[in-house]
Formats: sequence, structure tokens, C-alpha cells
Amino acid sequence: MAHPSTKIIPPLTDELDIVIPTIRNLDFLEQWRPFFEHYHLIIVQDGDPTKKIRVPDGFDYELYNRNDVNKILGPKASCISFKDSACRCFGFLVSKKKYIFTIDDDCFVAKDPTGKEINALAQHITNLLTPSTPDFFNTLYDPYRDGADFVRGYPFSLREGVPTAISHGLWLNIPDYDAPTQLVKPRERNTRYVDAVMTIPKRTLFPMCGMNLGFNRELIGPAMYFGLMGDGQPIGRYDDMWAGWCCKVICDHLGLGVKTGLPYLWHSKASNPFVNLKKEYKGIYWQEDIIPFFQAVVLPKECTTVQKCYIELSKQVKEKLGPMDNYFETLADAMVTWIEAWDEINAQPKAGSQPTTPPLKKEKSEEPKPK
Amino acid sequence: MAHPSTKIIPPLTDELDIVIPTIRNLDFLEQWRPFFEHYHLIIVQDGDPTKKIRVPDGFDYELYNRNDVNKILGPKASCISFKDSACRCFGFLVSKKKYIFTIDDDCFVAKDPTGKEINALAQHITNLLTPSTPDFFNTLYDPYRDGADFVRGYPFSLREGVPTAISHGLWLNIPDYDAPTQLVKPRERNTRYVDAVMTIPKRTLFPMCGMNLGFNRELIGPAMYFGLMGDGQPIGRYDDMWAGWCCKVICDHLGLGVKTGLPYLWHSKASNPFVNLKKEYKGIYWQEDIIPFFQAVVLPKECTTVQKCYIELSKQVKEKLGPMDNYFETLADAMVTWIEAWDEINAQPKAGSQPTTPPLKKEKSEEPKPK
Repeated sequence: MAHPSTKIIPPLTDELDIVIPTIRNLDFLEQWRPFFEHYHLIIVQDGDPTKKIRVPDGFDYELYNRNDVNKILGPKASCISFKDSACRCFGFLVSKKKYIFTIDDDCFVAKDPTGKEINALAQHITNLLTPSTPDFFNTLYDPYRDGADFVRGYPFSLREGVPTAISHGLWLNIPDYDAPTQLVKPRERNTRYVDAVMTIPKRTLFPMCGMNLGFNRELIGPAMYFGLMGDGQPIGRYDDMWAGWCCKVICDHLGLGVKTGLPYLWHSKASNPFVNLKKEYKGIYWQEDIIPFFQAVVLPKECTTVQKCYIELSKQVKEKLGPMDNYFETLADAMVTWIEAWDEINAQPKAGSQPTTPPLKKEKSEEPKPK
Repeated sequence: MAHPSTKIIPPLTDELDIVIPTIRNLDFLEQWRPFFEHYHLIIVQDGDPTKKIRVPDGFDYELYNRNDVNKILGPKASCISFKDSACRCFGFLVSKKKYIFTIDDDCFVAKDPTGKEINALAQHITNLLTPSTPDFFNTLYDPYRDGADFVRGYPFSLREGVPTAISHGLWLNIPDYDAPTQLVKPRERNTRYVDAVMTIPKRTLFPMCGMNLGFNRELIGPAMYFGLMGDGQPIGRYDDMWAGWCCKVICDHLGLGVKTGLPYLWHSKASNPFVNLKKEYKGIYWQEDIIPFFQAVVLPKECTTVQKCYIELSKQVKEKLGPMDNYFETLADAMVTWIEAWDEINAQPKAGSQPTTPPLKKEKSEEPKPK
């Protein structure tokens, strides 16, 4: 492999939080125990806050329900979606770590073609700690992997790469299809294990799925906002897409990289395509204008931080997409509220002062059961 | 898979030529016999024209040596490189078929992870007959493959794709590295079989290797010029790269697609890194200016054919790269000569008239040996 300037020292247990949005007991964690047990979890409980969510013993976690969100953010809580997995971004906001891995609670450990269980988190960390190469395409995929390198004709000046902000993983079994495709191909399963990680080239948009996603919170966190979806909103299932489009144009502007490919996890259950269609249908036609909008976005050079980029983007959303539907004016306002909330919660506490947001519930459940 | 508008009917035996540049007996064809025997070969003999090249029995081929090139092209033969595999593009010029597959004579049949021999040609044909998706990235790779489709969030208006002009295959065993990488990693072998085909996004350049390459001659043929390399030239081993950069900006301009990934073949032998370094060293530093040049190329909308695009590109090469070295002025002139030769050789013969270029040697060697 090529020699990245960043040294790889997994597994970063003190520098990474695992964020899980859920409405149910987290029994799925049992299967992930060998890979997750040394990490801290941030659980964002969606829906009814009075419901008690059970977390398997032995995990170190904090859990936030809607009442907690409202208490911590006050009026700014309006930017956090309710009854939609978009609420996961609240976990990104309150994390104090450098890296985030977020996963859905219907996702399990996949196996590689040799039958070995895949440590998805370790692969995300590897992806995030090695550079990306957005400026030129390498035909042998990620040049920083063992046994790979830059091929003949790859400019030497570009071989240092750029810092990786996002690592987008994939799914075996149930592919991440939209409702129309689900309806047309109810039996399709993804069985193809593609042994590759690659950088998504500069100026190319992609559909970012939030099911299996890692990112560097210091580099791109403030842009990882999942928008207004679910309860009271005219659209759903575009939360991660929205975040992906915003993040990609900001990464391109700031010289950061986005990787996709490995790791796979096992997506166990297709969501209901009829329900999905209802959530998606406005997105499906709005998207035909949203994509050209994002393809044309230019951020001025004064936008030197993610926050500045995101505020500028919110203005352009209001101006260019607002005329299509009022929803985008509301969304643009929520984008600003999100940044205000981010900056408030993530302000550096002065030496000796209390942190702004003490975690409400931080517990280490009983010792892990012997394996 | 998604339903492309083009119907797949391999193997197109009457519509595809296999172009092979060589300086030696073509014993390597024995291994390819089951896959190539029904196709027509165009062999471009490089170097000493008096040398007799042996072709295994049973193949249908025409063979051109330097004397033939000179006779057919006259003064325009100056645009065809000598003592360099760049001479292969002469085969593209004289082909009368819609599709070309070109392969190096040190490349053999690879096996997939199940041990099955890979029919590289059939995979190239599949790639060329299914659309490309350069305008938006699909995270599950080629949506037209069996078991794959467009993922959630992929705009529906872009799912028809665009016609595929180029299919770029890869190499197991000896990777296509430049001389410095060969010198640093003499023992590196490519053992990773990545089961993917993907479109290289619009506005992204890539290092196109000529070892294992298919293309649609009607769509992009006139841009598939391998430049001036080898004998009397200050540079080598950038022939396919040059063609790739030119083709990619023209494909982007004309709305055509370029795919890379499968098929693999087995690249048997690393070329001498010391010899390669001598050929490459000017290219290695010129490239640092060439890449930004190609990244910035804009073709005017009047350029509606490949020929017009290529002539325009030659002007920009002369203007922007000429000041770096006289070589690029010579190359720009050769680009024009190439197009003139292409148009002359490929002029539609009037009904009843003789074809402009009767193949000099067209032979069906003896019947294939019984297997």
C-alpha cells in the first residue's frame, strides 16, 4: 500500500462514539458485543419518551429521549426530527468524541466470503484514518490498502491524498432501495461482496445511507444534520440523503474526502414499501430539482469552516429551493438552528467551568457476561 | 438489475475486432482460443517488418507491419508510433467493426475466486452494451448487473444512463505500476479480485491502461489515438494514458460513459523498471501540468462529433502544453494527422466502388485443431 501520512492505530476506544437511534430494545447489540463492548454508545430514543428501552448488560452508554432533547436544546430542539431516525443527529451533536459510527438497530454482523465475521467498526476506522483521493481516480481502488497502490499514470503530486471525513459502508441481504424499487423487486437480496473501498470523486454526488456510517466529527460534524423528517413533516427517508448531499459539497469545497465500499453489515429486514412510498413520494420529485441545485452549488472562498459553509448553504437552500415548496424555507431555518445548537453545545468550556451539557444519563451497565 | 434500453446479445462475433500489438509469436493466443476463436484479429506487428510473426492455427486474422502502415497511410503514417505498443491504434483505424477489444500479448486468462476461467471479452461486451451512469454515483456499483439496481436516493431521471463508450478492465498478478513504484515494490502482486464494474464519474480523469480495453469504435474511435511514443520520441508508456485523458474529456462533453472494473486478466510479466523509468521520466513531470490542463479543458458546444472535439483538443494542446515542450506541438500536429487519416480510411465508399483500404493480408489459418 501507499504510505499515508496518518498512522493507523485502531481501535480508538476513547475517541469514538457509536450513535444508535431506536424505538425498541437493543437486543441487536448482543451480536455486536465483541466489536462494540469497549466503546461508548449514545442511544437516541425516538417516539414515546415514557417507554423504557432495554440495553443489554455490559455496554457503556448514555440514552436520550425526546424529553432530554427538549431539555438540553430548549427552543432549538425544533431542529431535531421526531418519529424518524433522523433524530440520530442529536447524538452527533452531544458527542464529545472525534469520530462517530452510527448504525441502525436492524443491522447485524455480516460475514465475508471466507465466512469470517466482519468487524465493521474497525474497517470504518481504517477508512477514516487513511487519506482519500478525490482529485483523480485510481483504478485499483483504495491505494492505501494492503497489496494496492497508485497505478501507472496517477500524478505523483496527488498521492498524498486528503483527510477522510466520511466512511460510507454497505449492506448485504436487504439492499437500500427506494419504495418503487422495493415494490418492483420484493425478493431482491444483495449477495455480492465487493472487496473494495474507494473515494467518491470530487464534484460527484452520491446517495449517503445512514445505516452504516462513520465520520470524523471534527472535520465534518456540523454538516451531518439529518434535516426535518417524520412527525409533522411532508417527507421522510431523505434524512441521510440530505446530510450526504450537504456534506459532499462541503467536503469538496474544504478539500476533504468521502470513502464508500467496505465494510458490509447484514441488513435484516426490509421496511414496508407502502409506508415508505408515502414518506418518499414528495422526495422523489423534489429530488429532481434538489440534485441539480447541489450539483451547481458554489461556496465562496470566505467559507473556511464547516459552520460557515453550512450557513451559506442554508441561504442558498432558502433562495433556490424555497420557491419549490415552503418546506425548504422551514428546512433552511432549521439548518441555521442546528448550527446554533451545535456551537452552543460544543463551545469550549472555560477552564474550571462546568461543561455546558452534562450528559443526563451516563451508565455503565453491569459487567459483561463471560463469553 | 435495472432495465437498460439496450438489449444484450453477446457475443457480437461480426461486430468486434480484437487488436493485438506485438513483436513476437502469438503463442499466448492458445490460452485464449475458446474465447477468441470466433472473432477476427487485427495484429499490428511492431519493430522489424522482415521478422515473421507466427500466429497459432485456426485464427482469422489480418496482420500489418510497418511497411503496410507506411503503404496504407503514406505521409500520414508519421502519426503512428514505431517501436512502441502505441502502434496498436493503427488497428483501430483500419477496423471496419463497431467494437474493439485490445489486449497485450503478455496477458493470459485469469480465474475468478471460484476457479472459473474468466471470459474477459464477454464481460467487456456486457459492459459496452449496458449504459453508464456518469452523472451520479451508485453505491452498489453497476446498477445494470444481475442482483443490483439503483439505490434509494438515486434520481429517477438519471436511471436511463448514457451510452457506454469505453470498458476498462483490470489485471491480476502484475499490477500496472509506474517505474518508481515497480522499483520500490518489486514483489507486489495484485491478488484482490474486486467483483465490481462501475462508471467513472463525469469530470473525473483516470489512468486508462491499454492492456485490457474495450471500446465502441463508432462512439469514440477517433479519440482513441495513442500519441507519439517510442522510436524518435522523448517519452514512452504514456500512450494509453494520453488516449484515456483525451477520451474522457470528450466522453464527458458528448454525454458518453466510461466503465472500469471487471473483467480481470492475468498479467504475466513485469516489464523492466529501469527501462521503464527511462521511458517515463519526462512523462512523470510533464504530467503534473498535463492533468490540470485536461481537468480545465472546455470544449465548445459546436464540437458535436468526436472528430470536431479532437481537433479542438489538438489546438488547446498546442496552445497550452506547447510552451512546456516542443514535443506537444509535434503531438498536436500528429493528432490532426490522425484525424485526417481516420476520416480518409473510414470514408464511406460509394456504392459499387472499391473500399479505400483493402486489407493487405487477410487469412484464415488452417482449421482449428480438435480440442
